Amino acid sequence: MDLKDKIRSIPDFPIKGVLFRDVTTLLKDPEGYHALIKTIANSLSDRKVDLVVGPEARGFVIGAALAYALNAGFVLARKPGKLPCETLKFEYGLEYGTDVLEIHKDAIQPGQKVVIVDDLLATGGTSLATIKLVEQAGGEVVGVRFAIELSSEFDGREMLKGYDVQSVLQY
Amino acid sequence: MDLKDKIRSIPDFPIKGVLFRDVTTLLKDPEGYHALIKTIANSLSDRKVDLVVGPEARGFVIGAALAYALNAGFVLARKPGKLPCETLKFEYGLEYGTDVLEIHKDAIQPGQKVVIVDDLLATGGTSLATIKLVEQAGGEVVGVRFAIELSSEFDGREMLKGYDVQSVLQY
Repeated sequence: MDLKDKIRSIPDFPIKGVLFRDVTTLLKDPEGYHALIKTIANSLSDRKVDLVVGPEARGFVIGAALAYALNAGFVLARKPGKLPCETLKFEYGLEYGTDVLEIHKDAIQPGQKVVIVDDLLATGGTSLATIKLVEQAGGEVVGVRFAIELSSEFDGREMLKGYDVQSVLQY
Repeated sequence: MDLKDKIRSIPDFPIKGVLFRDVTTLLKDPEGYHALIKTIANSLSDRKVDLVVGPEARGFVIGAALAYALNAGFVLARKPGKLPCETLKFEYGLEYGTDVLEIHKDAIQPGQKVVIVDDLLATGGTSLATIKLVEQAGGEVVGVRFAIELSSEFDGREMLKGYDVQSVLQY
């Protein structure tokens, strides 16, 4: 099974000139979805993972399933004002503008081993913000994983230099 | 293990007078998180489930993990403008205002067995909107599941009458 066959490509979304890689067609496919999560879980089988952190919103989907597959907990990195308790904040640039990401101040215990997961690696801005939040909380980032990496258009790897970065599908 | 011990209660969030049940403290707990998803999966072990649908954003967390646990696919029910292809839309009232929910027009094949999952059952508005979208697409709703049900304050069960509704924790 080639998981790339299950990704839909959409021209001019969200803005003209962008070829959007739509992961929803893979997620709705039971075999494809399972294979995607298994592939990411297998890439982490050599290390202990306490927590998976996923940024809002598609990072919740892949991150939550991965956390379940790894018997880890799941931590939500959210847009501002969504988390009910005291938060750590990080402002960052993303593919089409800027944004702020937050995690609960008590979401991660110092020394916990953390994997960061998102559906897509483009510039790496969202992932770097998530890394900074995890490290601010005292967590140790033991891996950064993506379903899709846009490696020909962006240099997200450069932004995430020094971390163990892997993606399942490359474009 | 009492999963209720892992839910944090926060007064006056998001508005004064509301006692917010914070599921994030349960999600970050590896054993608690696993037990939550297993409990929901076990409640569906007597039926075939093709797809799990979760509304944005916390529904993505529980829904995606449940889909993985059930070997089903996952479909995202999103806020307007987030999905890249043609969508079905449904407008609904929710606990603190109104909103619109969308799914991709081709996300569900007619006759597919669908479970709808969210973190919280309050008024039931979001869940009913999700049900309507699934049925509009031709899917058959074979279960509606929640982590938390606010049964003393709201009558979400009445709104979801006729469907198999179960929640793991009741308040």
